[in-house]
Formats: sequence, C-alpha cells, structure tokens
Amino acid sequence: MNIGQTNTLSKVSFSIEQTVATIRGVLEQLDVPRTLHQPLFLGNEWNYLKDCLDTGWVSSAGSYVDRIEQMLAEYTGAKRTVAVVNGTAALFIALKLAGVEPGDEVLIPTLTFVATANAVAYCGATPHFVDSEFATLGIDPTKLDHYLGDIADVDSNGAHNRLTGARIKAVIPMHTFGHPVDLDPLVELCKRWNLEMIEDAAESLGSFYKKQHTGTFGRIGILSFNGNKIVTTGGGGALLFNSDEEAKLAKHITTTARRPHKWEYYHDMLGYNFRMPNLNAALGCAQLENLPSFLERKRKLTLRYVEAFRNVPGVKVVEEPPLAHSNYWLNALVLDEEDASQRDALLESTNAIGIMTRPAWTLMHHLPMYKNCPRMDLSVAESLEKRIVNLPSSVPRIGS
Amino acid sequence: MNIGQTNTLSKVSFSIEQTVATIRGVLEQLDVPRTLHQPLFLGNEWNYLKDCLDTGWVSSAGSYVDRIEQMLAEYTGAKRTVAVVNGTAALFIALKLAGVEPGDEVLIPTLTFVATANAVAYCGATPHFVDSEFATLGIDPTKLDHYLGDIADVDSNGAHNRLTGARIKAVIPMHTFGHPVDLDPLVELCKRWNLEMIEDAAESLGSFYKKQHTGTFGRIGILSFNGNKIVTTGGGGALLFNSDEEAKLAKHITTTARRPHKWEYYHDMLGYNFRMPNLNAALGCAQLENLPSFLERKRKLTLRYVEAFRNVPGVKVVEEPPLAHSNYWLNALVLDEEDASQRDALLESTNAIGIMTRPAWTLMHHLPMYKNCPRMDLSVAESLEKRIVNLPSSVPRIGS
Repeated sequence: MNIGQTNTLSKVSFSIEQTVATIRGVLEQLDVPRTLHQPLFLGNEWNYLKDCLDTGWVSSAGSYVDRIEQMLAEYTGAKRTVAVVNGTAALFIALKLAGVEPGDEVLIPTLTFVATANAVAYCGATPHFVDSEFATLGIDPTKLDHYLGDIADVDSNGAHNRLTGARIKAVIPMHTFGHPVDLDPLVELCKRWNLEMIEDAAESLGSFYKKQHTGTFGRIGILSFNGNKIVTTGGGGALLFNSDEEAKLAKHITTTARRPHKWEYYHDMLGYNFRMPNLNAALGCAQLENLPSFLERKRKLTLRYVEAFRNVPGVKVVEEPPLAHSNYWLNALVLDEEDASQRDALLESTNAIGIMTRPAWTLMHHLPMYKNCPRMDLSVAESLEKRIVNLPSSVPRIGS
Repeated sequence: MNIGQTNTLSKVSFSIEQTVATIRGVLEQLDVPRTLHQPLFLGNEWNYLKDCLDTGWVSSAGSYVDRIEQMLAEYTGAKRTVAVVNGTAALFIALKLAGVEPGDEVLIPTLTFVATANAVAYCGATPHFVDSEFATLGIDPTKLDHYLGDIADVDSNGAHNRLTGARIKAVIPMHTFGHPVDLDPLVELCKRWNLEMIEDAAESLGSFYKKQHTGTFGRIGILSFNGNKIVTTGGGGALLFNSDEEAKLAKHITTTARRPHKWEYYHDMLGYNFRMPNLNAALGCAQLENLPSFLERKRKLTLRYVEAFRNVPGVKVVEEPPLAHSNYWLNALVLDEEDASQRDALLESTNAIGIMTRPAWTLMHHLPMYKNCPRMDLSVAESLEKRIVNLPSSVPRIGS
C-alpha cells in the first residue's frame, strides 16, 4: 500500500457520490450489514448457551472457560492463554506482569483505541506516544529507533528517558484494524533498548506476521472479544503467554488470587476479579469454531472493496502489509492528502443513508488526559487521522 | 440472635453426627442442592438469551442493559442504577466517585470477602479494619464510634487518623450473608465524622432495613450478580445512586468516558471498560423476574434450618437482625465458643459426604497484603471467624 503518496491525477476528480455509490454497491453485492461490524451467530452458540443454563454453570467456573483457553492456544500457537473479562483488563494485567510500575513510561502508538493508553494509566505509568507508518498503520520501528537514539539511554536496568528522567519500561504495538505491525525490527529494537513488548492484538485475532500469529511475538499478547470484533463473547478478552509460569500467575491474579483449597478463602496477594464468565466463554467457543469461515468471507469482502475502488479517484482501500496475513477485521479507506478536507462530508453522506462509517480514533495526544504526555513527532499518525474512513466490515452474509 | 452468649448446657453435648444429620434432613426435605449456592433458571432466561442471539445484540449496546437498570431501580428504590461487569468493579468506581484518593484510609469490616479490601487498594488507599457485632455480623457502629473518638479528629475536610496522619475518607458497611448492618446509627456516625458511606450490598439484593432496601442508605451502594448470588448474570454487578448526576457520571466513566457523537471517538477523561454486556444483562432480567419467588423460598429454607436446629446443642442458625428483613442469601451456623475447635471437623464431615459447607472468609487483617493495615480491636470478628460454618443455601427446588 502506498497511501503515503498522492495520486496527483485524482486531485480534481474525487467524488463523494461516486465513493458512496461504490461502498453501497459492495455491501449489496455481498449482503453485508450497513453497520460497522456486527456479529454473526450460525453455529453452536445456541447449544452452548443452553448447556450453560441446563447445567447451571454460567459464572466463575465451568468447562467453557477451559475450552476457550485451549482453543485460543491451539489457534494462536501461544503456549497458554487466560480468558478474562475484556481486552482492557487483559492489557492492564499484561503490563503489571511485565513489571510496569508507577512512574514508568510505556511507548504506545498515538493512533489506537483509548484502552491502550488507559491500561498504562491504570498502572500509574505514563503513555509515551509513538508515530505510525503508512505501510501498517502501526508503530514505525525505524522512526522509533531513531527517536530513542535522540532521547534515551539504555543499561541493564532498562531504557531511560533523558528528558523526563523516567524509566521506559515497555512498548505496546497495536495491530490497527487487524493489520500486523512490522514485528521483526520491533522485536529487535526491544532487545537493544531493553524494553518489554506487550502486543495489543485486540483487533487482530486471525492475523499473522510471517505465518506466526500476532500476539505471540512479545512477552505477553492480548485479544479482545468485544461485540464489534471478529468473534465475540459479548464482552471478553484473553492473555497469550509463551511461559507456563506467567500464565499461571495471570490466572491466579485475575481470579482474586485465592489459594486453592477445599473451602478456605485465603488470598495470598492483591488480586483482581477479571475472570471471564462461563456463559460468555460458551458463546466464544461457538464463535471460534467459525473463525476460519469468517476470515475467508471477510477477506472476500476486502478484495471486493479493493477491486471496486481501483478506479475511484482520491481514495485507496487499506490492504494487508507485506509479510503479513491480515484478518481484515475493519476495512478502511484512506483519502489522498489533498482530499482530507472531504472526510467529514463523506462520513455525513454515508451515515445519512444508514451506511455506518467512522473516522479513526481521535489521536491519544489530542485527548485532554493525555495531552501533556511525552511524544515523538507524530506527523504520519496525524496525516492518517485526517484521512481514514472505516467501512462496514461485518462477515458477508452470502457464504464463502 | 444472641450468638455472643453461650448456652452452658450444650457444652458436653455438641455432636458432629447430629449436626450433619440435621443439615442433611433439611436439604432432603426441601430438595435443596448440596452445593453452597447454585443458580436456578426457570423463567425467561432462555427466551432473553435467544433474543440476544437473534438480534445480534450481545455486547456493549442493547436493550437488556437499560432494562436491568430500570428493574433494579424499581426494586431497590434507588433513583438510578448502573450495570457493570461485577461487584468489585462497582465498588472501585463507587469509591472513586466518593472522592477516595491515594493515601486515604477507608473503614471496612475485617469480616468480609476480599473484594471490599481490594477495591480500596485499587484506589491507592488503605483499608482500615473495623470489628463486627454479633447481632448483624457486620460493622458495630457503637464500637466504631468509640474507636474513632480514641484515634481520630474531625473537621470540615473530613476525619483524620492521629496515629497515621491519613485522612479517613469513607466507610464501607458490608451486609454479611445478606443480613443488614444496623444502618441508622451508622448513617448518623458518618454525618458526625464527616465520612462518605459506600454500601457493599453485594450479598444483600432483596434485604431491607426498616423497609428500605440495603444499598440505598449511603452515598452509593453496590450489588453483585456473581454465579453464587441470589440472582446471577454470569458475572455482573451494579451501582445504586440517589443522585442522577452521579449516576450519569458513573455510566460515563464505566463506558470508556466517550463523549456522545455519531462517529467521533473522543474520550474526555480517564474511563474504564466496565460495562455489563447485553448478554449478561438479558440473563439478569429473567432472573430478577423471579426474585420475589426466590426470596420466599429461601426464607422457607432458613426457617426450616432454624426449626431443625432448635434442639441441636452447641450451634445456632443465624437469623435476620432486629429491624431487618434479610434475603437469607447464605445460611450460617455459629458454633458455641467452647465448640469452635470442632469447626474444621464439621467442615470435613459435611464436605466428605458431598454437602458443601465452608467457613467465613479469612479475616482481612490475616491476609499477607493487608496484615499491616490499621485496625481496631477485632475480637468479635475473630470469634465469629472461628465459629461460622456456611450451609447449602440455594433456592429450594420444591416450590413455594
């Protein structure tokens, strides 16, 4: 994708009407709902929920929690996974386990959903904002490396921000709309700068980088199963681990840190009530059974968008980065730079006729609670924010 | 209930065999499961879950969340309620809204589930442990008042602990096993000592003090719908408010503090992802429809336990305190003081034959992370901890 460059020929001919008509055509052709992303229940959802009611196991114990954790481990290749109440909680726990402490800084993209920054804040740490690259929409490892060279020192205790005096403990790549960040250089950068990598794969279940599943490259990865994700548990998330030890600890502290005992209620450390209820896990198990089919059908939708927009001037459909196989969770158009001023008009025109579109998230450094946080030059993210329009991206109802 | 006193006649005649046989007799007579507390699904649970699947609304939006909030407000008399992901999250948010800040102390009973203390710790505040009274198993207002007289000063900014220098910001009465704390003197004490009262009514949905529902006496109250509670949402909780303003703020910060807008993702403060998924709310709506029947049948069970144990020496069944109407969520035996050494043998004997019993929670000041927290004399709670045995308490399967 070369969305950083502009097709100068298209300058005068970008047309909202043509763009809207093209979107509508694709949705009608593949029977895709006009919402941004809604779930599809066509498998065992009903059976598994009924089983929960029939057995009485809806809550903090029950077989579906174990089953979803096994299914996720098998699918992602993570050694072990821990199901929790949502992706935000998963990210908070991941940062805690990685040793993020009050006063630390954590490098995160400014182009992300607010949960990435909030999870850092819950630790008493400070988000430190990083720019994106056009090719992935995620953290630009080269630019970050140069920036760290300018402002940080590294020793055996970690990286240190010379400007703020704080330790820079970790980096959280977020795989935007499901598109994997360029992970190899980022992994290498983390080693050199002594940073923990926590992967925010909330949007990228089903996305692979060089055939390895996103969320398994860092020390810990997290997933989300919110209602707008590729598979849903109603609300839910998971932690992905490469270490059995760490997964066990995560299970312990997300389930109130109660010491196993027949009847005693003894908690040996500060724990959290973040377990995923069995009812939600049951829904997730049924959904995961259909993940391969969902992925195939979503890919078909993106290809259709790409094709349909090939000759529409002024916009490009975001495609998976090189080296990556994306789940195509959320499709996006990127307007050419000179047409960025048309973004809101496009949003208005589509939403006015019931086709839900939305811009990218407001950048984190533009939010009031994060506006004074440290940051590098963020010009690519700022350009993307002005130009991205997300498109309806549900699994097509017409089968694969 | 006069469980503080000992029946000297019973001293030699307490018998584990007789006690176990009495429990078993009650369970068989009323067809009560041998587990401690398991849910019962006999109403619209199935219909409402199916409706979620059919409409696709399982997650962060949907009508059941609004509906459960309305049902809870109507039932409890709270002006407005906010459904969240669990009781622990509700308590944390309540403390935040009440102005609890890092370094503050919060008065809580040492005899409680660990979530009460953890919610305080999540705020960066310190739990300060309070004794219970025999009549309610909850905070003893008279003893607390004398203690505060000994260690604290009060001015227009709040109460101040002379021993630690910290501000004492709030008190959290917890209605143990569903039995209401003696609220009138506690409300009066809070006024005099300038303390915010946050009611932990996690266990007391359906319990009233002088005909007013527990959870509505303090600034904010919280409920839990965990799988072991009188009604369940799988996992869930709620905040109860007397102020519309405060409820609106709670809704905002528990749903990521996103400013309402057609498509913009702008969050105006640090928010949390604590919303209750619609799927769980649907289950809860169906459960709440049956709450009156559940309460009636649970009361019948307790009366049966009381009757059956009337002539069993050395133990008493906990009954609702004066002024209170309890939901009888979890039944408890209290052993006479001289028989406290038999507690573990009784736990062993019952669990060995599949009748689930358990002791009270390990007292908070005995847990490693809280053992150095400030505390008053806790002799009544310590006595109770040695003597309480909870009994199977599910809604009897034989109808009311």
